[in-house]
Amino acid sequence: MEDATTPQAEPQTLYPVIDNTKDYFIERDGVRYAGNHVLVEVWDAIHLDNPTIIEAALCQGARDAGATILHSHFHHFSPYSGVSGVVVLAESHISIHTWPEKAYAAIDIFMCGDCDPHDALPSIKKALQPKSMDVSAHKRGVIK
Amino acid sequence: MEDATTPQAEPQTLYPVIDNTKDYFIERDGVRYAGNHVLVEVWDAIHLDNPTIIEAALCQGARDAGATILHSHFHHFSPYSGVSGVVVLAESHISIHTWPEKAYAAIDIFMCGDCDPHDALPSIKKALQPKSMDVSAHKRGVIK
Repeated sequence: MEDATTPQAEPQTLYPVIDNTKDYFIERDGVRYAGNHVLVEVWDAIHLDNPTIIEAALCQGARDAGATILHSHFHHFSPYSGVSGVVVLAESHISIHTWPEKAYAAIDIFMCGDCDPHDALPSIKKALQPKSMDVSAHKRGVIK
Repeated sequence: MEDATTPQAEPQTLYPVIDNTKDYFIERDGVRYAGNHVLVEVWDAIHLDNPTIIEAALCQGARDAGATILHSHFHHFSPYSGVSGVVVLAESHISIHTWPEKAYAAIDIFMCGDCDPHDALPSIKKALQPKSMDVSAHKRGVIK
């Protein structure tokens, strides 16, 4: 008979465990590194106060890049109606922070493995229709 | 009498609305911009397979920088035991992706308003005890 004073607790998974074999270091042009991280400055864009449109665009961008979406979370701010959100990927993340009053958004897209963060840009461009986008690319985790 | 065929739906808030008056563009040394974004390369660190320690360190870093935590979400991967997580802030975000098998982690900290992302680094350094950290700082949303 089991001891009623020491019940078996249900195992708790506070942090979801995800099988991920794509999260490897990559080697390209003789450089071995963890992944590519692009910072995107979005200017003169529309819909920057609309979290529904922004989340759909970022998630579509993730899928277009062949990434796997694990979680997304977005906030809508007041009084300036900005939006902040992140999409957590098996291959890293996409984030956005918008300033509608300046028609500006800061996006960063980090993807490891075979995924290229640049492949996420067309869906974002289509949704937000910016007059200009400045993209800087950074290799993360370069092994020297 | 109310028309029973058109019931009043409860208002739904899919995206939490957060009051945020600190999310303004800043002006420093004659430069007007949205915020500071630092990319941190963490090498030869410990606890990179421990989401509990990592989440605590990042959240403490956010508080040390005077930021307001709105949401955090972390994953634990297998078979390599890496951790991916984000802390969404009223002032932007902190993210981390770890490769324990390489003793490497990629962190990025973006903060707008008066918060300085560098102030989040000591708690991360204390928790992960890296032998080296490379930090590159980027001004986001510079108005030309």
